[in-house]
Order: sequence, then structure tokens, then C-alpha cells
Amino acid sequence: MNVFIVYAHPEPRSLNGALKDPAVRTLTGLGHTVEVSDLYAMGWKAQADGADFLDRAGAGRLSYVRESGHAFATGTQTPDVTAEQEKLLWSDAVILQFPLWWFSMPAILKGWVDRVFAFGFAYGVGRHEGERWGDRYGEGKLTGRRAMLSTTIGGRGPHYSERGVNGRLDDLPFPIQHGILFYPGMAVLQPHTVFQVDRLSDEHWPQIADNWRARLRGLFDEPPIPYRRQNAGHYDGQQLLKPGLGAGEGGTRIHLLQPSEPPERPDGARHQRADRHP
Amino acid sequence: MNVFIVYAHPEPRSLNGALKDPAVRTLTGLGHTVEVSDLYAMGWKAQADGADFLDRAGAGRLSYVRESGHAFATGTQTPDVTAEQEKLLWSDAVILQFPLWWFSMPAILKGWVDRVFAFGFAYGVGRHEGERWGDRYGEGKLTGRRAMLSTTIGGRGPHYSERGVNGRLDDLPFPIQHGILFYPGMAVLQPHTVFQVDRLSDEHWPQIADNWRARLRGLFDEPPIPYRRQNAGHYDGQQLLKPGLGAGEGGTRIHLLQPSEPPERPDGARHQRADRHP
Repeated sequence: MNVFIVYAHPEPRSLNGALKDPAVRTLTGLGHTVEVSDLYAMGWKAQADGADFLDRAGAGRLSYVRESGHAFATGTQTPDVTAEQEKLLWSDAVILQFPLWWFSMPAILKGWVDRVFAFGFAYGVGRHEGERWGDRYGEGKLTGRRAMLSTTIGGRGPHYSERGVNGRLDDLPFPIQHGILFYPGMAVLQPHTVFQVDRLSDEHWPQIADNWRARLRGLFDEPPIPYRRQNAGHYDGQQLLKPGLGAGEGGTRIHLLQPSEPPERPDGARHQRADRHP
Repeated sequence: MNVFIVYAHPEPRSLNGALKDPAVRTLTGLGHTVEVSDLYAMGWKAQADGADFLDRAGAGRLSYVRESGHAFATGTQTPDVTAEQEKLLWSDAVILQFPLWWFSMPAILKGWVDRVFAFGFAYGVGRHEGERWGDRYGEGKLTGRRAMLSTTIGGRGPHYSERGVNGRLDDLPFPIQHGILFYPGMAVLQPHTVFQVDRLSDEHWPQIADNWRARLRGLFDEPPIPYRRQNAGHYDGQQLLKPGLGAGEGGTRIHLLQPSEPPERPDGARHQRADRHP
């Protein structure tokens, strides 16, 4: 299988670097092919702006969405963006390796998303009409791929637990896992986390790398987070979760399939209109 | 009062620009003093890296946290970072004006946070020992200031409602509102949002600007989101919300004060150890 690691840390000798390298070796050893985008080493352009479009559709006011769609459709994206999209399409699994900074991705990685996840590629895909809002959340150009966050965290694990002061790890990465990775169709695995990294000494690193290797061996076997697909009958024509679903849960967890609920429509039906389903 | 607007859009003639300019005029007309950081116009450096530190504490492996603390403490941060910190300290209210891209901030704005919210300034503040985890979540160097997100959103409002497919607006900006703004002590107001912005025509803009002006007139009057302070008796020594609090709520909402609950400890007591309180 093909595994694409997007790595965002300014220091190659960091713990993030020390997780990226054994990942490459372990996955290669398992017979997979691995591609790495090392965003800092590549000098990745983080800010999204008009320079991202080599043949502007409009000379006037810049609409990033419109220009993104035009550039994607006409092959006039910048080469760095096209190369990353090709890696995504090539991949069977995508791993984002980064330090959690301010409860989210480093800016350089967010800029990778902002620029690579183009209109027509990662959003604006599928039929948008009436009450149908396109192919997204479980469907899209990246369907069939797995994705996982692998992140180092300065804080303590309990602070991120169910009642921890920082918020829980179902909720904090929801904008990334659900909103960025599941949106264009990828199946998202539970994040891999290492806590209190600023208090670790180098002697802890081998065990941390071992844990990561063990996790990677199940990359294509472990069950993904059971986010509900948008067009599989659980959301109504206004894209609201239908009454009765998600009962007993609050917040982001209502968007997880519950074992006691009726199953989603199978994949074969996914291009039917969502609002024709009960 | 002093109002600091951090504005992140690559197109001055965008709707975001058209919200920033009347905000300046309205706030000035109310007698406030306004400062704007236009991140794209400033050519703000988005990626956080070793170049942010003019006098490295260590010549070896870059620890961004350690270097951030050293640079802040010794006055060897880059001038762009220092200038933004001074604006934050000068301000009585901070407004972040940006388009919601992939359910979060544009990379350039995240890079403003990553670099400006330094160790010793926005985190790593206060006493860290035993079960006390510093001054954060309602206390810190930015206490006494208000903060608000003002954001334009491509999607439809219902998709962001309580049961909407995108997740609700209590949860999606939680990493920003609670994790970035409340963390160093600011009181956070409900976000100001404009939906379906790519389907608006220019004729809608005056009404949108009017709504924004009306909102701004209450900037110093409206009640903030009632996030619980970390060191006010509601979290235990492990920084877990104490049993019984947040009952009936799920996810990020357990971190909101509930009207039926005992009040927090008043401010005067906030430097006592949290674990000495019932």
C-alpha cells in the first residue's frame, strides 16, 4: 500500500522527526511504499493568496474559492500544490505528523491544507443543488483512503480527558479529523498522541518510537472513527441530524454512529438524494 | 478604550475587508482608539521556526518552547513579534477578522498565534508546581481584555447549528476561543458570523456591515461566554472538572458555567491552589 506522511516540524532532531523516521522504516519493512512531504525542509508557502493561481479567472477582486476552482479545473495551480494533490491521490493512507500548537496544527501545515485542498478537489465536489450539498463527509475524491493524526502534545493526558480542562480529544481535533480529513472522503483513525513532550528526556524516545511502530502495524486494520456519512440517510435535506439519532450524546459525538441505531445506507446508494431517505 | 483588530484576508476588497473598514470607523466614532494588524499587507511570516529567535539559548536541537521562553525573557524576540505583543497589552478588546477556512483560521493567522503567543507571555505564565498548572483559562497576562472572532463562512447557517452536519459553533471554534483566547486570560464574546458568503452579491454588503456595526456598539457591554476559570475551584488538582458540575451537558459545554451551579471563587482568591478548594 502507499502511505503519505505530511511532516511539519522545524527541527529534524525533534521528537516529531524521531517519529517520522521510524515510521518510514517500519512501513517500508511491512512492504508499503512511503512518500514524505517535509513541509519545513520544502520551504512550503504557508499563506494562501493570489500568487497561488497562475492564470486568474478574474482580474478584479480575488475570490480564493473561485480562483481555486478555476486553477484546479484548468491545470493552472502552482506546481507545489499539484504535486501534493498527486501524492494524496496516490496514497492509501495519509499520516499528519506534527506538534499540537495551540490545540491545532502549526501554521505551515494549516497552509498545506488551505492551498492543497482545492475547490473541485477536496470541496465543491459532486452535485450541489436544492437540498443536496455535494459529495462530502465520507464521500469525495479521497474516498478509500485512511488518515491519521500523529501529534506530540506539551500538556498532560488528563487535561485532555473526558472532563479535562483543555477539552477532550474527541472535540479538539474534530475540525481537523471531521472537517478536513473526513470531509473529502477519508476514513479517519483515532489520533496517535504523546503527552508532556517538553518534560521527556531522550531516554524515553525509544519506547515512544516502539509504541508508534506498534500502532502503525495496524494502520490498515484498525476500525476508523465511525463518523456518519452526510449522504447516507442520517441527515435531512437541511443537513441536520434526523430526530432520534445521537440520543444521549452531546456536541461532536452526535456525529458518530451509535451501535443501537439503524445502519447507514450502503455505499452503492450514496449518490441518491439524501432527502428521499427516511 | 483601545481596540486591536487582527485582520487576515489576501484581498482588501473582500467582504472581510468590507467588515474591517466600517469597524474602524464605528469604533473610532464611539471614541475608541483602533489599531489594525493587516497580516497579508504586513507580509506576516506564518511559519514558526528557529529564525524567530535572535539569540538562541541552545545551539543544538531547536526546542521552540524553550527558545520562545528565552527570547521573551531576554528581549531577543524578532521585532514583529514584540510589536504584536505590545498591541495586545495595549488593547482593551481584540477582534480577529478572518474567513473560516477548513473550520479554522487561515494559516497566516494561525502563524500569528504560533509566534506571538510566546512562552512567558501567553503560556508558561504563573506558578507551575505540583498540581497547579499555572495561570491560564481566565487568568494570565491578557486578563481584563475582551476578544471576539468575526468570521465569514462559506457554508449555510443550519449546517453549523445544534445538529448540523458540520458541527455546532460552540464546538468548532472551541480550540480558538477557549484554547487560544481564554487561555491567556481574555473574556471571549460569542463569535460574529456571516454565512454563505460566496453566494452573496455586493448589494447584501451594506446590511451585513450594518449588522456588524450594531454588534460592535455592544463590544464592551455584552456578556462573555461563561467559560469556567481553571483556578476558581471548579477543576480538581488533576485539572478535571469536579463531579456534579456540567451535569446534563456534553463535550465542550461542560466547560461553561451553568446557572444552577455554585459560583466560582471570586478573583481575589485566584492565586490560591486550586486543589485546596472543595
